[in-house]
Amino acid sequence: MVLNYKELMEKIKEVIVFQSAKAVLEWDAQTMMPPRATHMRSRQLALLSKIEHKMLTSHEIGELIEEILRNPEFESLSLEQKRNVYLSKKAFGEQSSLPEKLVAQTEKQKIIANKAWEKAKKAKKFSIFKSELEKLFKLRKEAAEILMKVKGVDTSYDALIDVFEPKMTAKAIANFFSQLKMGLIKILRKCESSSIKPERSFLKRRIPVETQRKISKELARFIGYDVESKDAGGRIDESEHPFTKGYYNDVRITIRYDENNWIRCVFSLLHEGGHGIYDQNLRAEWIYQPIGSPCSYGFHESQSRFLENIVGRSREFWKYFLPKLNKITNNAFSDVDLDSFVLGINRVRPSKIRVDADEVTYCLHIIIRFEIEKGLFKDEISVSELPAVWSQKYEEYLGLEIKHDSEGVLQDVHWSLGLFGYFPSYALGNIYSGQILNAIEKEMPGWKVDIANGDFRRVKKWLTRKIYHYGNLYDPQDLIERVTGEKINVEPFLNYLNKKYSNLYLP
Amino acid sequence: MVLNYKELMEKIKEVIVFQSAKAVLEWDAQTMMPPRATHMRSRQLALLSKIEHKMLTSHEIGELIEEILRNPEFESLSLEQKRNVYLSKKAFGEQSSLPEKLVAQTEKQKIIANKAWEKAKKAKKFSIFKSELEKLFKLRKEAAEILMKVKGVDTSYDALIDVFEPKMTAKAIANFFSQLKMGLIKILRKCESSSIKPERSFLKRRIPVETQRKISKELARFIGYDVESKDAGGRIDESEHPFTKGYYNDVRITIRYDENNWIRCVFSLLHEGGHGIYDQNLRAEWIYQPIGSPCSYGFHESQSRFLENIVGRSREFWKYFLPKLNKITNNAFSDVDLDSFVLGINRVRPSKIRVDADEVTYCLHIIIRFEIEKGLFKDEISVSELPAVWSQKYEEYLGLEIKHDSEGVLQDVHWSLGLFGYFPSYALGNIYSGQILNAIEKEMPGWKVDIANGDFRRVKKWLTRKIYHYGNLYDPQDLIERVTGEKINVEPFLNYLNKKYSNLYLP
Repeated sequence: MVLNYKELMEKIKEVIVFQSAKAVLEWDAQTMMPPRATHMRSRQLALLSKIEHKMLTSHEIGELIEEILRNPEFESLSLEQKRNVYLSKKAFGEQSSLPEKLVAQTEKQKIIANKAWEKAKKAKKFSIFKSELEKLFKLRKEAAEILMKVKGVDTSYDALIDVFEPKMTAKAIANFFSQLKMGLIKILRKCESSSIKPERSFLKRRIPVETQRKISKELARFIGYDVESKDAGGRIDESEHPFTKGYYNDVRITIRYDENNWIRCVFSLLHEGGHGIYDQNLRAEWIYQPIGSPCSYGFHESQSRFLENIVGRSREFWKYFLPKLNKITNNAFSDVDLDSFVLGINRVRPSKIRVDADEVTYCLHIIIRFEIEKGLFKDEISVSELPAVWSQKYEEYLGLEIKHDSEGVLQDVHWSLGLFGYFPSYALGNIYSGQILNAIEKEMPGWKVDIANGDFRRVKKWLTRKIYHYGNLYDPQDLIERVTGEKINVEPFLNYLNKKYSNLYLP
Repeated sequence: MVLNYKELMEKIKEVIVFQSAKAVLEWDAQTMMPPRATHMRSRQLALLSKIEHKMLTSHEIGELIEEILRNPEFESLSLEQKRNVYLSKKAFGEQSSLPEKLVAQTEKQKIIANKAWEKAKKAKKFSIFKSELEKLFKLRKEAAEILMKVKGVDTSYDALIDVFEPKMTAKAIANFFSQLKMGLIKILRKCESSSIKPERSFLKRRIPVETQRKISKELARFIGYDVESKDAGGRIDESEHPFTKGYYNDVRITIRYDENNWIRCVFSLLHEGGHGIYDQNLRAEWIYQPIGSPCSYGFHESQSRFLENIVGRSREFWKYFLPKLNKITNNAFSDVDLDSFVLGINRVRPSKIRVDADEVTYCLHIIIRFEIEKGLFKDEISVSELPAVWSQKYEEYLGLEIKHDSEGVLQDVHWSLGLFGYFPSYALGNIYSGQILNAIEKEMPGWKVDIANGDFRRVKKWLTRKIYHYGNLYDPQDLIERVTGEKINVEPFLNYLNKKYSNLYLP
């Protein structure tokens, strides 16, 4: 029995080692690869995906799982061992259910659709993207329908949501989102009707890329994301779209530096750094085991958004960091006082681009995407209707008129990569982050004093002990309850926003 | 029949795509990887090696080759197709003969031995390296003895030489090397007895790393190694030891910049760039086919050493590049006239470190290593005797007293990576480069005027047409004959050196 378990873990370890190797090639494609190598790289990644699929769906793994589950000694396994078996079974069952041909076709179509999306976005024309997206959507829907049966969930969309946020459903999300929407719009109206008008011209100041790199390094030091020492386990690089790829001792975040939008580098670094320290601080003994991975995409996002927003847009953080910033930039902001600075970076105003949205309106962008995805998978919306539906919803929820597809339906890369069901994670991350904040406030009332002193260590230790070290031992809804003592709910996040923005916008 | 051939090529293509992906991880390990990831990376590479071995030795490949060779229509295949079958059969036969366990053990021992070597080199103590090298040597010898039978060669050492230089034997090499030795020592004596004493203090001038990076880029432009354009297929990075990894549209060279040894960056760039343009300019239609690879390690080295030495240490090149260098370095060398400069960089003097050797003594370093390897594989020398034998040969051939192991037997990384049989390639590369020079002189008498004008294009075109485009269609000894009309022989290389150094050292 124990022997079977060990054997299964050896097989799974190989898959995980393989996946971690593949991740380096994906990172390289966005950061280092010579442009001419694009075609070669897509071949390499398609092949590696195929091999990964084969490894994960091997008969040996299937049989080992069967034997372990049939064995009466199964009950004597530890919680961690049982979870490893459960996660292996889940991954094996799902992957095996997908025909190899479908997997290969999807991999290929992702590359084609992503290229078409890039072209369409540049040309501001959805029509260039449409037919490739239709094909990709069809393939994803086919997979979703298979996975729906395997997972035993109600809808094909639920099957995809479960990929990113296990056990979550569109119905539950719709419920959270409707509460969220009401709460957010109330806060938004309050801000809009306030006589306070944040001054933001200092965000327009030109800061050279070289200086921004120094800002990034200073921020990395603050969160303890080591890229400099002889034992460093991280990197900061540059890419078109910021992202994080990593596993334990090899974690890589990327930033895009824009001389004319320096603040973006700050929030990007904190956001990706939040992802990075999660990946770096998983429990060392669990490396190469299924439980040695982050809990879910929503949980991952809770960490990045906690760092970016709850910490990074707080008055306490800037009390510490504004003098640092002035030192690095040669006093580029010495004329801006702390309160004006904090108000400026926290201005609330509906905007068309999700990644530039403020904390209050951000989730509205997500809700729009969620409703559209739901409609797509229910066949209530067709791919060709996307631009029209998009515009109508932005008008309705944010009061904005979308002028062309690139500031509308083409703004996000996700669908071009087949990532349907991913968007809700961002809003779930915000919801979790509110609950986590509550727990921290209760258990470490003085934590904000630490931040004002530039000391993130105590908070990081808490997050490590309470979240990172649990890896994938629990499903997200169980983990949030264990961490905070409460079921997932939107109240803490709304309360946080309400309190923060009432203060900021109090005339 | 044609169907079988196509099927075989599809299988082989997968192996080659896989190998090209693995190469990126190897490059990353030396350039980008966070230091903490070392252990994880060695696991990844060991796994990829295992998968590669499995792919290459699959039953399907074996059967396809058998069927193709049995088929009477085999004769109707083109030269290229037949060579592809031949190369596939060779690789399959060799890899299949090696037990999986031996391959895995060797991969692991390489990593351990390389670590021990690093430690030993730092501590200047061969004893730290000894037992790990012994284990690795044993494993390589075991493989060599198996390969000896499969390849039908006379000795185990020949089997390893054939890995790097197909159809070459230790006997033939010994013959070339004894002629080479005599010729080189004659030239060395002439230089030593000359009254001319090259002035080299300008090589000691401190050039900042940032400036050296500019020098590298300028040199890359000269050889047409594109790292800057939107369609670039190359990169220049930094690593402890310079190297080149690449395949067609993704070629990466590395340099190590030393503020106190600026000239090294020039010769490194030209050397690695010579490798780089070979890999980049293989025949496009042959990508992912066995023939779409370089001819041999010796041929590869002929290109790097042609660029580094025959071009890069020539008066003509510096006529063009010295003014450029002065421009980039803000006239750091404006007080050095062309002749003194060229004489300075071409000083001949026995030295202990191979990579810093001049053109005349370089091959003596190789001859020493070749003789030692031959002795090892004949069991005439044991691993524990290496330091003593090394010292004795350096005394005998170069008149130098080795003071500690790091300037002696520990200087090269090769053995710690199991690369026995590799060293001769360097000297064979020199030999080929002399013959290639002869052919260029005959077919393009004005080529040196081009170089003096900073124009490398015509030479590059010639090399592409005559060498790069032939990929691996011929074994190296056939290719050199096709390129130059002559069988491999040391005369042209010795003549080149004789003429060059007689001129330089003529009082």
